[in-house]
Amino acid sequence: MKKIKRVVNNISEIDIEYMSRAQRKLDNLTKPLGSLGRLEEVAKLIAGITRKDAPKLKKKVIFTLAADHGITEEGISAYPKEVTAQMVYNFINGGAGINVLADHIGAKVVVVDMGVAEKLKIKKSKCKNFKDKKIAFGTRNFLNGPAMTRDEAVKSIETGIGLFEEEKDNGIDIVGIGEMGIGNTTSASAISACFTRKSACEITGRGTGIGDEALQNKINVIDKALKINRPDPCDPIGVLTKVGGFEIGGLAGIILAAAAERIPVVIDGFISTAAALIAYAIEPKVKGYLIASHSSVEKGHKAILDYMGLKPIFDLNLRLGEGTGAALGINIVEASVKILNEMATFKSANVSRETGS
Amino acid sequence: MKKIKRVVNNISEIDIEYMSRAQRKLDNLTKPLGSLGRLEEVAKLIAGITRKDAPKLKKKVIFTLAADHGITEEGISAYPKEVTAQMVYNFINGGAGINVLADHIGAKVVVVDMGVAEKLKIKKSKCKNFKDKKIAFGTRNFLNGPAMTRDEAVKSIETGIGLFEEEKDNGIDIVGIGEMGIGNTTSASAISACFTRKSACEITGRGTGIGDEALQNKINVIDKALKINRPDPCDPIGVLTKVGGFEIGGLAGIILAAAAERIPVVIDGFISTAAALIAYAIEPKVKGYLIASHSSVEKGHKAILDYMGLKPIFDLNLRLGEGTGAALGINIVEASVKILNEMATFKSANVSRETGS
Repeated sequence: MKKIKRVVNNISEIDIEYMSRAQRKLDNLTKPLGSLGRLEEVAKLIAGITRKDAPKLKKKVIFTLAADHGITEEGISAYPKEVTAQMVYNFINGGAGINVLADHIGAKVVVVDMGVAEKLKIKKSKCKNFKDKKIAFGTRNFLNGPAMTRDEAVKSIETGIGLFEEEKDNGIDIVGIGEMGIGNTTSASAISACFTRKSACEITGRGTGIGDEALQNKINVIDKALKINRPDPCDPIGVLTKVGGFEIGGLAGIILAAAAERIPVVIDGFISTAAALIAYAIEPKVKGYLIASHSSVEKGHKAILDYMGLKPIFDLNLRLGEGTGAALGINIVEASVKILNEMATFKSANVSRETGS
Repeated sequence: MKKIKRVVNNISEIDIEYMSRAQRKLDNLTKPLGSLGRLEEVAKLIAGITRKDAPKLKKKVIFTLAADHGITEEGISAYPKEVTAQMVYNFINGGAGINVLADHIGAKVVVVDMGVAEKLKIKKSKCKNFKDKKIAFGTRNFLNGPAMTRDEAVKSIETGIGLFEEEKDNGIDIVGIGEMGIGNTTSASAISACFTRKSACEITGRGTGIGDEALQNKINVIDKALKINRPDPCDPIGVLTKVGGFEIGGLAGIILAAAAERIPVVIDGFISTAAALIAYAIEPKVKGYLIASHSSVEKGHKAILDYMGLKPIFDLNLRLGEGTGAALGINIVEASVKILNEMATFKSANVSRETGS
């Protein structure tokens, strides 16, 4: 817990003065006032996060954390749990959606085994972007009690903090977070239902694409899990312990560490946002550092974005995870700061201002 | 008219067979079926447009066409009309929003004087990306009769065709269209009201940011202009003649020429979409080649997108024009084809498929 406390103590509010200065700068650029809409809002936010008048977002890092979930025993996913490990190999070989989109935006992908259920055979020398931080071989089935021990929950968050801090030495200007874990929409749904106090039915979606019957089963499983474990939203580490996942804890840790270093975090879809929810419950000030990239197809996503008061940048009907939406989001954030930094002012370009009609 | 007829004759439907093949390819990539949402739809469309199984979008060209509008005499804009010329200089010096965003996505911007109201002093040798295609020193005030002669309308479209064809020699894989012209939302509103048969009141917005009184005046001006000129939606060149603009005609020409060459066109906001409406009315098959980048703040934009059955990719509350939304749109289109081309398949990556629960 020491590491978490240290990091949380370093999180302060974003800087309103830098945001006002960014607003004044934006209002002097050669465009009608406010005509670049959300791009202007985001640029202003980045100034407030980074405390820089001309923030640069050169080093972009997407953390894709993988782990397995004991709850898959209950038949809540369309895919067998072996896919988690198979996809980690795919990430490392560069064939997954996140590899393609990270390459498109010029970001590095850091792939982490937080708790995959099998021993991965990955040569460290060959894969500099892979990190083995396995906490256990998957969580336990949370229908039979907590998914992990409280120590494991703390360790998963602290591992996330460590991941960020290790990478920070190479330079990080903006972080994207993503995940892979068969069964993890079930965990994310349980976390979301707990914090928002909505029913499993209101929060639970089809994940990778289950049919009607399997969806009803998934809802029943989540309902039962919440009754058995009774996670308390006032104890976010307890929620993670009872119905969470190792990748979710790791992402929450990355978010806390990034906020402490005033680095913007672009969150991906439903599971990443559930991780953000844990971080937010630990320290509400992290909210200022979060940028919601997209609105996922998963119905619980909207509920938790609303709960935190986050407005996604776009909606492309994505539901892949891995950090794919975050990658596209980072690209738009980057565009927004270039607007702030590179456009000419009315004065410098000799352009007349509005006559105010 | 010969040039227009030749180009229109070369426009065929997009290729459904290539789209089906792209769909099959997408369904075999390592992701849950359809989980990349709109990216998959767009990738499939690009395959159908280009008749390529692995379309590449290397050469990106954004055409930013500028012209003045006589209707500014009626006080319908928040900015003086001198701003059109001033902004052309800004485009050439690289200080405008479109320069920043085109640079962000690696696109070339071709700036064209289609009818700016003053003689621009631009050295050709210094500005390879600028083209002087001035048709006249702005349109006439269409409250006093047609904005241009029918010959000028035809010439503006043919100039657009010529612009595309000249640039095509340097290679074009995807086109973005944008514009600059103080007063041109008034022209776009009149065009939109004519085709959609909606009232000026339903279509007209605040443009660069006019107040309530000026908005009411703008609506009255458009109403009156439609009554005086009686543009006929069955005669799209007549509509352009009566209430259009030279940049709008030019953009319509670029769209027709791109469709004839099976090159995708990413449209920007309200004015670009009004130009697309003219092209669509001339030849409805162009619709297949159009990708609507964003949903503008201008209320008429949604009406004309709906009229053509186009669904924008994102909504960032933009209302700048110049091609800024198109630039961000091109970037997402590019991401979508990279997904199609670069992701591993379930087979190649040894990933198990869904069990269909």
